[in-house]
Amino acid sequence: MTTLRVPVVEKILSANDRLAEQNRARLDQCGIFGLNIMAAPGAGKTSTILRTIEALSSGTPGSPIALGVVEGDTAAVTIDADKIIAAGRPAVQINTGGECHIDAVMLSGALNQLPLDQIELLIVENVGNLICPAAFSLGTHANVLISSVAEGDDKPYKYPNIYRGIDALIINKIDLLPYVEYNLDYFRRGVELLNPGVLTFPLSCRTGEGVERWVEWLLRKVKRET
Amino acid sequence: MTTLRVPVVEKILSANDRLAEQNRARLDQCGIFGLNIMAAPGAGKTSTILRTIEALSSGTPGSPIALGVVEGDTAAVTIDADKIIAAGRPAVQINTGGECHIDAVMLSGALNQLPLDQIELLIVENVGNLICPAAFSLGTHANVLISSVAEGDDKPYKYPNIYRGIDALIINKIDLLPYVEYNLDYFRRGVELLNPGVLTFPLSCRTGEGVERWVEWLLRKVKRET
Repeated sequence: MTTLRVPVVEKILSANDRLAEQNRARLDQCGIFGLNIMAAPGAGKTSTILRTIEALSSGTPGSPIALGVVEGDTAAVTIDADKIIAAGRPAVQINTGGECHIDAVMLSGALNQLPLDQIELLIVENVGNLICPAAFSLGTHANVLISSVAEGDDKPYKYPNIYRGIDALIINKIDLLPYVEYNLDYFRRGVELLNPGVLTFPLSCRTGEGVERWVEWLLRKVKRET
Repeated sequence: MTTLRVPVVEKILSANDRLAEQNRARLDQCGIFGLNIMAAPGAGKTSTILRTIEALSSGTPGSPIALGVVEGDTAAVTIDADKIIAAGRPAVQINTGGECHIDAVMLSGALNQLPLDQIELLIVENVGNLICPAAFSLGTHANVLISSVAEGDDKPYKYPNIYRGIDALIINKIDLLPYVEYNLDYFRRGVELLNPGVLTFPLSCRTGEGVERWVEWLLRKVKRET
Protein backbone atom coordinates (compact mmCIF):
# COMPACT_ATOMS: atom_id res chain seq x y z
CA MET A 1 0.00 0.00 0.00
CA THR A 2 1.41 3.36 -0.99
CA THR A 3 0.97 6.43 1.11
CA LEU A 4 -0.48 9.35 -0.72
CA ARG A 5 1.58 12.43 -0.10
CA VAL A 6 -0.29 15.67 -0.09
CA PRO A 7 1.86 18.28 -1.79
CA VAL A 8 2.19 21.33 0.40
CA VAL A 9 2.52 24.48 -1.64
CA GLU A 10 4.00 27.36 0.25
CA LYS A 11 4.87 30.73 -1.06
CA ILE A 12 8.59 30.86 -0.65
CA LEU A 13 9.45 34.42 0.21
CA SER A 14 12.73 35.88 -0.78
CA ALA A 15 14.95 37.35 1.92
CA ASN A 16 13.86 40.80 0.77
CA ASP A 17 10.16 39.94 0.99
CA ARG A 18 10.61 38.52 4.48
CA LEU A 19 12.31 41.70 5.63
CA ALA A 20 9.63 43.77 3.93
CA GLU A 21 7.03 41.91 6.00
CA GLN A 22 9.00 42.72 9.14
CA ASN A 23 9.14 46.39 8.15
CA ARG A 24 5.38 46.37 7.59
CA ALA A 25 4.76 44.79 10.99
CA ARG A 26 6.98 47.39 12.62
CA LEU A 27 5.18 50.27 10.89
CA ASP A 28 1.80 48.79 11.83
CA GLN A 29 2.86 48.38 15.43
CA CYS A 30 3.73 52.08 15.57
CA GLY A 31 0.53 53.09 13.74
CA ILE A 32 2.57 54.50 10.85
CA PHE A 33 1.35 54.64 7.25
CA GLY A 34 4.32 53.95 4.95
CA LEU A 35 4.44 55.44 1.47
CA ASN A 36 7.03 54.47 -1.17
CA ILE A 37 7.52 57.14 -3.85
CA MET A 38 9.21 56.07 -7.08
CA ALA A 39 10.03 58.05 -10.23
CA ALA A 40 12.63 58.69 -12.89
CA PRO A 41 15.40 61.17 -12.01
CA GLY A 42 14.06 64.71 -11.88
CA ALA A 43 10.35 63.87 -12.07
CA GLY A 44 9.74 65.74 -8.83
CA LYS A 45 9.87 63.28 -5.93
CA THR A 46 11.39 65.71 -3.44
CA SER A 47 9.23 68.59 -4.70
CA THR A 48 6.12 66.46 -4.18
CA ILE A 49 7.23 65.55 -0.68
CA LEU A 50 7.89 69.22 0.15
CA ARG A 51 4.44 70.21 -1.16
CA THR A 52 2.92 67.36 0.85
CA ILE A 53 4.72 68.48 4.01
CA GLU A 54 3.48 72.02 3.43
CA ALA A 55 -0.13 70.89 3.03
CA LEU A 56 0.00 68.50 5.98
CA SER A 57 1.51 71.12 8.28
CA SER A 58 -1.50 73.39 8.25
CA GLY A 59 -4.54 74.40 6.35
CA THR A 60 -5.70 70.96 5.23
CA PRO A 61 -8.47 69.57 7.50
CA GLY A 62 -7.10 66.70 9.56
CA SER A 63 -3.58 68.14 9.64
CA PRO A 64 -1.03 68.65 11.08
CA ILE A 65 0.29 65.16 10.47
CA ALA A 66 3.49 63.95 12.13
CA LEU A 67 5.63 63.01 9.19
CA GLY A 68 9.09 61.56 8.61
CA VAL A 69 11.05 60.99 5.43
CA VAL A 70 13.62 58.45 4.25
CA GLU A 71 15.68 59.72 1.33
CA GLY A 72 17.25 57.17 -0.99
CA ASP A 73 20.32 58.41 -2.85
CA THR A 74 23.01 56.66 -4.86
CA ALA A 75 25.68 59.01 -3.54
CA ALA A 76 26.60 60.68 -0.27
CA VAL A 77 25.10 64.08 -1.12
CA THR A 78 22.30 65.09 1.22
CA ILE A 79 20.64 67.69 -1.04
CA ASP A 80 17.17 66.17 -0.65
CA ALA A 81 17.40 65.22 3.02
CA ASP A 82 18.62 68.76 3.80
CA LYS A 83 15.48 70.17 2.14
CA ILE A 84 13.23 67.97 4.29
CA ILE A 85 15.05 68.97 7.46
CA ALA A 86 14.83 72.63 6.40
CA ALA A 87 11.07 72.04 6.14
CA GLY A 88 11.13 71.03 9.80
CA ARG A 89 10.65 67.27 9.50
CA PRO A 90 12.92 64.39 10.51
CA ALA A 91 14.77 62.83 7.58
CA VAL A 92 17.20 59.97 7.26
CA GLN A 93 19.30 59.39 4.18
CA ILE A 94 19.98 55.96 2.76
CA ASN A 95 23.14 56.15 0.66
CA THR A 96 22.86 53.06 -1.53
CA GLY A 97 26.54 53.33 -2.50
CA GLY A 98 25.80 53.34 -6.22
CA GLU A 99 22.98 50.78 -6.00
CA CYS A 100 19.98 51.50 -8.20
CA HIS A 101 17.16 50.98 -5.69
CA ILE A 102 16.26 50.81 -2.01
CA ASP A 103 15.56 47.35 -0.61
CA ALA A 104 13.87 46.20 2.57
CA VAL A 105 17.20 45.74 4.41
CA MET A 106 18.16 49.35 3.77
CA LEU A 107 14.75 50.60 4.91
CA SER A 108 14.97 48.47 8.04
CA GLY A 109 18.24 50.22 8.92
CA ALA A 110 16.72 53.63 8.26
CA LEU A 111 13.73 52.88 10.53
CA ASN A 112 16.20 52.43 13.40
CA GLN A 113 17.28 56.05 12.96
CA LEU A 114 13.81 57.61 13.09
CA PRO A 115 11.62 58.56 16.07
CA LEU A 116 8.93 56.05 15.02
CA ASP A 117 6.75 56.75 18.06
CA GLN A 118 6.37 60.35 16.87
CA ILE A 119 5.46 59.62 13.25
CA GLU A 120 2.09 58.97 11.58
CA LEU A 121 3.21 59.09 7.97
CA LEU A 122 6.56 57.82 6.71
CA ILE A 123 7.45 58.80 3.17
CA VAL A 124 10.23 56.86 1.48
CA GLU A 125 11.79 58.57 -1.53
CA ASN A 126 13.22 55.78 -3.63
CA VAL A 127 16.22 56.14 -5.94
CA GLY A 128 15.43 57.90 -9.24
CA ASN A 129 14.91 54.93 -11.54
CA LEU A 130 11.92 53.49 -13.43
CA ILE A 131 13.18 49.91 -13.52
CA CYS A 132 14.94 48.41 -10.49
CA PRO A 133 12.84 49.83 -7.59
CA ALA A 134 9.77 48.02 -8.97
CA ALA A 135 11.37 44.67 -8.09
CA PHE A 136 11.92 45.28 -4.37
CA SER A 137 9.11 45.37 -1.81
CA LEU A 138 9.89 47.63 1.12
CA GLY A 139 6.99 46.87 3.43
CA THR A 140 5.31 50.22 2.88
CA HIS A 141 1.51 50.38 2.61
CA ALA A 142 1.30 52.12 -0.75
CA ASN A 143 3.50 52.54 -3.81
CA VAL A 144 3.15 55.80 -5.71
CA LEU A 145 4.80 56.62 -9.02
CA ILE A 146 5.46 60.15 -10.22
CA SER A 147 5.65 60.73 -13.97
CA SER A 148 6.59 64.17 -15.28
CA VAL A 149 4.94 65.40 -18.46
CA ALA A 150 8.40 66.59 -19.56
CA GLU A 151 9.42 62.92 -19.82
CA GLY A 152 6.91 62.33 -22.61
CA ASP A 153 3.67 60.40 -22.91
CA ASP A 154 5.13 57.01 -23.85
CA LYS A 155 6.62 56.00 -20.51
CA PRO A 156 3.94 53.43 -19.51
CA TYR A 157 4.59 51.61 -22.78
CA LYS A 158 8.35 51.63 -22.27
CA TYR A 159 8.60 50.95 -18.53
CA PRO A 160 5.52 48.79 -17.94
CA ASN A 161 6.63 46.91 -14.81
CA ILE A 162 6.71 49.91 -12.52
CA TYR A 163 3.21 50.98 -13.62
CA ARG A 164 1.79 47.56 -12.77
CA GLY A 165 2.60 47.60 -9.07
CA ILE A 166 1.46 51.05 -8.03
CA ASP A 167 -1.51 52.21 -5.96
CA ALA A 168 -1.59 55.76 -7.28
CA LEU A 169 0.05 57.79 -10.03
CA ILE A 170 1.04 61.44 -9.86
CA ILE A 171 1.38 63.25 -13.19
CA ASN A 172 3.69 66.12 -12.27
CA LYS A 173 4.74 69.35 -14.02
CA ILE A 174 1.39 69.93 -15.70
CA ASP A 175 2.40 73.62 -15.83
CA LEU A 176 4.75 72.56 -18.66
CA LEU A 177 1.94 71.06 -20.79
CA PRO A 178 1.74 74.11 -23.09
CA TYR A 179 5.46 73.81 -23.89
CA VAL A 180 5.92 70.07 -24.50
CA GLU A 181 4.49 67.54 -26.92
CA TYR A 182 2.36 65.40 -24.66
CA ASN A 183 -0.85 63.51 -25.35
CA LEU A 184 -2.51 62.89 -22.00
CA ASP A 185 -5.04 60.45 -23.53
CA TYR A 186 -2.26 58.34 -25.01
CA PHE A 187 -0.47 58.32 -21.67
CA ARG A 188 -3.64 57.37 -19.79
CA ARG A 189 -4.46 54.56 -22.24
CA GLY A 190 -1.03 53.07 -21.61
CA VAL A 191 -1.51 53.25 -17.85
CA GLU A 192 -5.01 51.76 -18.06
CA LEU A 193 -3.71 48.70 -19.94
CA LEU A 194 -1.21 47.98 -17.19
CA ASN A 195 -3.11 49.01 -14.09
CA PRO A 196 -6.84 49.37 -14.77
CA GLY A 197 -8.55 51.96 -12.66
CA VAL A 198 -5.45 53.21 -10.87
CA LEU A 199 -5.98 56.64 -9.32
CA THR A 200 -4.15 59.48 -11.03
CA PHE A 201 -3.33 62.91 -9.67
CA PRO A 202 -2.29 65.46 -12.28
CA LEU A 203 -0.55 68.29 -10.46
CA SER A 204 2.17 70.89 -10.54
CA CYS A 205 4.60 71.13 -7.65
CA ARG A 206 5.72 74.44 -9.09
CA THR A 207 2.32 76.19 -9.06
CA GLY A 208 0.60 74.01 -6.48
CA GLU A 209 -2.27 73.17 -8.85
CA GLY A 210 -3.79 69.75 -8.09
CA VAL A 211 -1.78 69.19 -4.91
CA GLU A 212 -4.89 69.45 -2.70
CA ARG A 213 -6.61 66.42 -4.27
CA TRP A 214 -3.45 64.30 -3.86
CA VAL A 215 -3.04 65.31 -0.22
CA GLU A 216 -6.70 64.56 0.52
CA TRP A 217 -6.26 61.03 -0.82
CA LEU A 218 -3.06 60.53 1.16
CA LEU A 219 -4.67 61.87 4.32
CA ARG A 220 -7.55 59.40 4.02
CA LYS A 221 -4.97 56.61 3.71
CA VAL A 222 -3.04 57.83 6.75
CA LYS A 223 -6.29 58.03 8.78
CA ARG A 224 -7.26 54.56 7.48
CA GLU A 225 -10.54 55.99 6.14
CA THR A 226 -10.29 54.07 2.85
CA MET B 1 70.13 30.60 -3.53
CA THR B 2 66.57 31.72 -3.92
CA THR B 3 65.03 32.55 -7.26
CA LEU B 4 63.51 35.99 -7.42
CA ARG B 5 60.04 35.81 -8.81
CA VAL B 6 58.91 38.77 -10.78
CA PRO B 7 55.26 39.45 -9.97
CA VAL B 8 53.19 39.68 -13.14
CA VAL B 9 50.32 42.06 -12.78
CA GLU B 10 47.59 41.56 -15.33
CA LYS B 11 44.36 43.42 -15.56
CA ILE B 12 41.75 40.79 -15.08
CA LEU B 13 38.89 41.69 -17.35
CA SER B 14 35.37 40.76 -16.51
CA ALA B 15 33.40 38.68 -18.99
CA ASN B 16 31.56 41.85 -20.00
CA ASP B 17 34.77 43.79 -20.57
CA ARG B 18 36.20 40.98 -22.69
CA LEU B 19 33.11 40.96 -24.87
CA ALA B 20 33.19 44.74 -25.06
CA GLU B 21 36.73 44.47 -26.44
CA GLN B 22 35.49 42.00 -29.04
CA ASN B 23 32.69 44.38 -30.01
CA ARG B 24 35.22 47.20 -30.35
CA ALA B 25 37.46 45.07 -32.56
CA ARG B 26 34.52 44.15 -34.73
CA LEU B 27 33.44 47.78 -35.12
CA ASP B 28 37.02 48.81 -35.92
CA GLN B 29 37.34 46.07 -38.50
CA CYS B 30 34.25 47.41 -40.26
CA GLY B 31 35.40 51.03 -39.95
CA ILE B 32 32.39 51.86 -37.77
CA PHE B 33 32.36 54.56 -35.10
CA GLY B 34 30.24 53.34 -32.20
CA LEU B 35 28.38 55.78 -29.97
CA ASN B 36 26.64 54.83 -26.70
CA ILE B 37 23.90 57.27 -25.67
CA MET B 38 22.72 57.18 -22.08
CA ALA B 39 20.12 59.24 -20.24
CA ALA B 40 17.27 59.17 -17.75
CA PRO B 41 13.84 58.19 -19.12
CA GLY B 42 12.42 60.93 -21.29
CA ALA B 43 15.55 63.09 -21.53
CA GLY B 44 15.43 62.89 -25.32
CA LYS B 45 17.64 60.03 -26.48
CA THR B 46 15.48 59.07 -29.46
CA SER B 47 14.76 62.71 -30.31
CA THR B 48 18.50 63.42 -30.36
CA ILE B 49 19.10 60.42 -32.61
CA LEU B 50 16.34 61.55 -34.98
CA ARG B 51 17.79 65.08 -35.13
CA THR B 52 21.24 63.57 -35.74
CA ILE B 53 19.91 61.36 -38.55
CA GLU B 54 18.24 64.40 -40.09
CA ALA B 55 21.47 66.43 -39.99
CA LEU B 56 23.64 63.59 -41.24
CA SER B 57 21.30 62.81 -44.14
CA SER B 58 21.86 66.09 -45.94
CA GLY B 59 22.89 69.68 -45.49
CA THR B 60 25.80 69.17 -43.11
CA PRO B 61 29.16 69.17 -44.90
CA GLY B 62 30.61 65.63 -44.91
CA SER B 63 27.18 64.00 -44.93
CA PRO B 64 25.37 61.81 -45.82
CA ILE B 65 26.68 59.33 -43.28
CA ALA B 66 25.63 55.68 -43.37
CA LEU B 67 24.11 55.20 -39.95
CA GLY B 68 22.54 52.36 -37.99
CA VAL B 69 20.85 52.31 -34.60
CA VAL B 70 20.51 49.80 -31.78
CA GLU B 71 17.56 50.55 -29.52
CA GLY B 72 17.68 49.27 -25.95
CA ASP B 73 14.28 48.78 -24.33
CA THR B 74 13.14 47.03 -21.19
CA ALA B 75 9.97 45.82 -22.88
CA ALA B 76 8.91 44.47 -26.25
CA VAL B 77 7.47 47.73 -27.56
CA THR B 78 9.27 49.01 -30.65
CA ILE B 79 8.16 52.67 -30.42
CA ASP B 80 11.71 54.02 -30.75
CA ALA B 81 13.01 51.51 -33.30
CA ASP B 82 9.94 52.21 -35.45
CA LYS B 83 10.80 55.92 -35.46
CA ILE B 84 14.35 55.19 -36.65
CA ILE B 85 13.09 52.91 -39.42
CA ALA B 86 10.53 55.57 -40.40
CA ALA B 87 13.52 57.92 -40.71
CA GLY B 88 14.96 55.51 -43.26
CA ARG B 89 17.76 53.94 -41.23
CA PRO B 90 18.34 50.33 -40.14
CA ALA B 91 17.46 49.72 -36.50
CA VAL B 92 17.62 46.69 -34.26
CA GLN B 93 15.88 46.48 -30.93
CA ILE B 94 17.41 44.89 -27.88
CA ASN B 95 14.61 43.90 -25.53
CA THR B 96 16.41 43.51 -22.21
CA GLY B 97 13.44 41.67 -20.72
CA GLY B 98 13.14 44.00 -17.77
CA GLU B 99 16.90 44.44 -17.29
CA CYS B 100 18.03 47.94 -16.47
CA HIS B 101 20.90 48.33 -18.93
CA ILE B 102 22.46 47.01 -22.13
CA ASP B 103 25.61 44.92 -21.73
CA ALA B 104 28.29 43.86 -24.21
CA VAL B 105 26.66 40.44 -24.78
CA MET B 106 23.39 42.04 -25.83
CA LEU B 107 25.18 44.46 -28.15
CA SER B 108 27.16 41.60 -29.67
CA GLY B 109 23.89 39.89 -30.56
CA ALA B 110 22.49 43.08 -32.04
CA LEU B 111 25.58 43.57 -34.23
CA ASN B 112 24.79 40.23 -35.87
CA GLN B 113 21.48 41.67 -37.06
CA LEU B 114 22.88 44.79 -38.72
CA PRO B 115 24.43 45.30 -42.17
CA LEU B 116 27.78 46.29 -40.65
CA ASP B 117 29.51 46.63 -44.02
CA GLN B 118 27.08 49.42 -44.91
CA ILE B 119 27.41 51.45 -41.70
CA GLU B 120 29.86 54.21 -40.73
CA LEU B 121 28.20 55.33 -37.50
CA LEU B 122 26.43 53.01 -35.08
CA ILE B 123 24.36 54.71 -32.41
CA VAL B 124 23.35 52.62 -29.40
CA GLU B 125 20.45 53.99 -27.40
CA ASN B 126 20.87 52.56 -23.94
CA VAL B 127 18.00 51.88 -21.51
CA GLY B 128 16.65 55.01 -19.81
CA ASN B 129 18.53 54.91 -16.52
CA LEU B 130 21.18 57.10 -14.86
CA ILE B 131 22.69 54.36 -12.74
CA CYS B 132 23.15 50.85 -14.12
CA PRO B 133 24.30 51.58 -17.73
CA ALA B 134 27.37 53.37 -16.34
CA ALA B 135 28.72 50.06 -15.05
CA PHE B 136 28.73 48.15 -18.35
CA SER B 137 31.21 48.84 -21.17
CA LEU B 138 29.78 48.05 -24.57
CA GLY B 139 32.83 48.46 -26.78
CA THR B 140 31.62 51.68 -28.37
CA HIS B 141 34.12 54.48 -29.05
CA ALA B 142 32.34 57.23 -27.16
CA ASN B 143 29.84 57.51 -24.32
CA VAL B 144 27.47 60.43 -24.42
CA LEU B 145 25.03 61.42 -21.69
CA ILE B 146 21.91 63.48 -22.29
CA SER B 147 20.56 65.53 -19.40
CA SER B 148 17.29 67.41 -19.81
CA VAL B 149 16.91 70.78 -18.12
CA ALA B 150 13.43 69.62 -17.03
CA GLU B 151 15.14 67.07 -14.76
CA GLY B 152 16.69 69.84 -12.70
CA ASP B 153 20.21 71.15 -12.19
CA ASP B 154 21.27 68.80 -9.37
CA LYS B 155 21.65 65.60 -11.36
CA PRO B 156 25.49 65.53 -11.49
CA TYR B 157 25.55 65.74 -7.70
CA LYS B 158 23.01 62.94 -7.32
CA TYR B 159 24.12 60.53 -10.05
CA PRO B 160 27.88 61.16 -10.14
CA ASN B 161 29.06 57.83 -11.58
CA ILE B 162 27.46 58.26 -14.99
CA TYR B 163 28.95 61.74 -15.37
CA ARG B 164 32.46 60.45 -14.69
CA GLY B 165 32.68 58.07 -17.62
CA ILE B 166 31.37 60.18 -20.48
CA ASP B 167 33.12 61.78 -23.44
CA ALA B 168 30.47 64.41 -24.12
CA LEU B 169 27.35 65.77 -22.46
CA ILE B 170 24.21 66.97 -24.22
CA ILE B 171 22.03 69.39 -22.25
CA ASN B 172 18.66 68.93 -23.94
CA LYS B 173 15.34 70.82 -23.86
CA ILE B 174 16.95 74.25 -23.48
CA ASP B 175 13.71 75.62 -24.99
CA LEU B 176 12.14 74.87 -21.57
CA LEU B 177 14.66 77.02 -19.65
CA PRO B 178 12.23 79.97 -19.30
CA TYR B 179 9.65 77.67 -17.65
CA VAL B 180 11.73 75.64 -15.18
CA GLU B 181 13.91 76.45 -12.20
CA TYR B 182 17.35 75.61 -13.49
CA ASN B 183 20.73 77.13 -12.67
CA LEU B 184 23.06 76.24 -15.55
CA ASP B 185 26.14 77.40 -13.62
CA TYR B 186 25.30 75.12 -10.69
CA PHE B 187 24.79 72.22 -13.09
CA ARG B 188 28.08 72.91 -14.90
CA ARG B 189 30.01 73.19 -11.63
CA GLY B 190 28.77 69.74 -10.65
CA VAL B 191 29.80 68.29 -13.99
CA GLU B 192 33.23 69.95 -13.85
CA LEU B 193 33.96 68.38 -10.46
CA LEU B 194 33.31 64.90 -11.85
CA ASN B 195 34.62 65.19 -15.38
CA PRO B 196 36.84 68.25 -15.82
CA GLY B 197 36.77 69.78 -19.26
CA VAL B 198 34.13 67.45 -20.69
CA LEU B 199 32.53 68.87 -23.82
CA THR B 200 28.93 70.02 -23.39
CA PHE B 201 26.33 70.64 -26.07
CA PRO B 202 23.29 72.62 -24.91
CA LEU B 203 20.56 72.07 -27.48
CA SER B 204 16.86 71.66 -28.11
CA CYS B 205 15.63 68.70 -30.12
CA ARG B 206 12.29 70.45 -30.32
CA THR B 207 13.49 73.69 -31.96
CA GLY B 208 16.76 72.38 -33.42
CA GLU B 209 18.82 75.07 -31.64
CA GLY B 210 22.35 73.87 -30.90
CA VAL B 211 22.03 70.61 -32.85
CA GLU B 212 24.53 71.75 -35.51
CA ARG B 213 27.44 72.06 -33.06
CA TRP B 214 26.75 68.58 -31.66
CA VAL B 215 26.58 67.03 -35.11
CA GLU B 216 29.82 68.72 -36.18
CA TRP B 217 31.60 67.19 -33.18
CA LEU B 218 30.14 63.77 -33.90
CA LEU B 219 31.05 63.99 -37.57
CA ARG B 220 34.67 64.77 -36.71
CA LYS B 221 34.67 61.67 -34.50
CA VAL B 222 33.18 59.50 -37.25
CA LYS B 223 35.75 60.78 -39.75
CA ARG B 224 38.51 60.24 -37.14
CA GLU B 225 39.54 63.89 -37.45
CA THR B 226 39.93 64.36 -33.69
